[in-house]
Amino acid sequence: MAKRLGDSVIALGDRVHILGHAAVGCRKESEGPLAADFDALFLDSSMGEDSWEKAESALQREALSRAMQNAGIEPEALHCLFAGDLLNQCVASHYHLRNLGVPVVGLYGACSTMTESLMVASVFIDGGGAERCGAVTSSHFCSAERQFRYPLEYGGQRAPTAQWTATASGAAIVGVGDGKVRVADVCPGRIVDKGMTDINNMGACMAPAAADTLLRYFRDTGSQPTDYDMVVTGDLGLVGSRLLAELLLADGVELADRHRDCGLMIYDRDTQDVHAGGSGCGCSAGVLCGHLLKRMEAGEINDMLILSTGALMSPTTNQQGESIPGVAHLVHLTAK
Amino acid sequence: MAKRLGDSVIALGDRVHILGHAAVGCRKESEGPLAADFDALFLDSSMGEDSWEKAESALQREALSRAMQNAGIEPEALHCLFAGDLLNQCVASHYHLRNLGVPVVGLYGACSTMTESLMVASVFIDGGGAERCGAVTSSHFCSAERQFRYPLEYGGQRAPTAQWTATASGAAIVGVGDGKVRVADVCPGRIVDKGMTDINNMGACMAPAAADTLLRYFRDTGSQPTDYDMVVTGDLGLVGSRLLAELLLADGVELADRHRDCGLMIYDRDTQDVHAGGSGCGCSAGVLCGHLLKRMEAGEINDMLILSTGALMSPTTNQQGESIPGVAHLVHLTAK
Repeated sequence: MAKRLGDSVIALGDRVHILGHAAVGCRKESEGPLAADFDALFLDSSMGEDSWEKAESALQREALSRAMQNAGIEPEALHCLFAGDLLNQCVASHYHLRNLGVPVVGLYGACSTMTESLMVASVFIDGGGAERCGAVTSSHFCSAERQFRYPLEYGGQRAPTAQWTATASGAAIVGVGDGKVRVADVCPGRIVDKGMTDINNMGACMAPAAADTLLRYFRDTGSQPTDYDMVVTGDLGLVGSRLLAELLLADGVELADRHRDCGLMIYDRDTQDVHAGGSGCGCSAGVLCGHLLKRMEAGEINDMLILSTGALMSPTTNQQGESIPGVAHLVHLTAK
Repeated sequence: MAKRLGDSVIALGDRVHILGHAAVGCRKESEGPLAADFDALFLDSSMGEDSWEKAESALQREALSRAMQNAGIEPEALHCLFAGDLLNQCVASHYHLRNLGVPVVGLYGACSTMTESLMVASVFIDGGGAERCGAVTSSHFCSAERQFRYPLEYGGQRAPTAQWTATASGAAIVGVGDGKVRVADVCPGRIVDKGMTDINNMGACMAPAAADTLLRYFRDTGSQPTDYDMVVTGDLGLVGSRLLAELLLADGVELADRHRDCGLMIYDRDTQDVHAGGSGCGCSAGVLCGHLLKRMEAGEINDMLILSTGALMSPTTNQQGESIPGVAHLVHLTAK
């Protein structure tokens, strides 16, 4: 049974563990500093499919099936899947999950979907409604660019604040059992909009939401950044990470050396031409379900806050002059 | 604490009640047989806004604020909101919820969102993670037509199997407290795809998913249709409702006079020119949060299964030759 801490935090009992996880990526991820921590890297980002949407769906299927394999379970053993992605109608998720025989709760939180899905799955398990669930998401540079900005063939120039959508997917199997990493508590995010309208600066749209979630979390748990080995944001990139530090400092909270950002970890900005860093649902999903969970299992990280960050950007409303709201859902993981 | 029944059903404890609810609609809904059960009807479907997307968002804001008013609570008292809609990036939900100060978990289940959001909210409350949550969704004929089919100005002819997207919204406040209606159990849906590709026949895409959820529910609870006063589907319309009856009969289950479909209740097919009936997230949301919950509170319905039904249709993948999967999430409501 969960317990509420203050207004914002849901403290879970001790039954929710990570039973298995997997990350997959493509060529760009294979050239980045975290390549060794991916379960598979596909050098053909079409995945042998005839559209980018189908390629992304195939990538997500690979991540989920490897996570189940790593957890040692078959789909029939899953009580529910929590899935979503950036594509309209979340097709990358829905298409590979059809006819799988597992109930699916579809989520939309833009790039915040990895911790959103992990959070909701954990609450279902903690409450006794399920014993084993999956949380999965993905993104693909080519499907995202053409949906949110321009077709790749157009060859639009990228702004210095722009981030590179990761062609990657991550999946985690959570449940009752004997995992080394436990989901201790979660904090759902509020939708924060500070009036940013630049579709080439997602970091600035998301940083205020990340700051909001972290400030509420530290307040309601009575903790501070130095109580954790690491405080990881999803894909703020260089611009958003600097903004987050400034916003928190204004409230007297210093993240300092505890802060990492998946968007700054997944690629090497000096050599990979990704401008302000990586982004996309697959960025924090790939870094969490590959690199970070492996580091926790190896005993290198014992206590970590991770909040995937989403810019709820719509080309339609953006063209209608609307600003871009952000959201960030937090999950607190501990290793025993 | 929840208990699992069989593979599929999550039986909740007795703490999750409907504390308040509201439904709003526009002109077409005001001319339909359920008009008297809406909390508000707006004859100008632009809601005074300058785009259909913003109009839908305004409609959803009206439903939520009236539901909170009917429950006698302020936004600050809500621990979490579960929201989603048909628009790309769920903008109808996200835009009116920004800066409201309440955590938001975004969902995507196409027209299944009303019972999807009610289900997830109920699980959060049952497990102790929240005491009061909101579940809200909407649809708008004009924003949906131009996103999924043709711009209205094109004047495309509608097929006999086509359904009319409701311009409506419904919201329910669920939580621990003294409501007359209780959420007894829930059953998340599986994604079922029988190969339908016709974007003008959503009923046929969704009926197999509704049948799948109902068959699993009856099996795992050991119940049958006659154990309930009513078994209500979301928006199968005439075509989908007939198909559902056929599919269930093939498995020896007869819904017969217990079955109602929100898509056949919200409009009068004889006089309102809606072809196969109503559809859209707002259809089952409006009918549940207006008509049905009022009938339960009046003691006319005591025990009801409701499953909103979603066609996970994407214009992009449809144009790539893909078929249209369906999903249906079930919620069991009882009145004391």
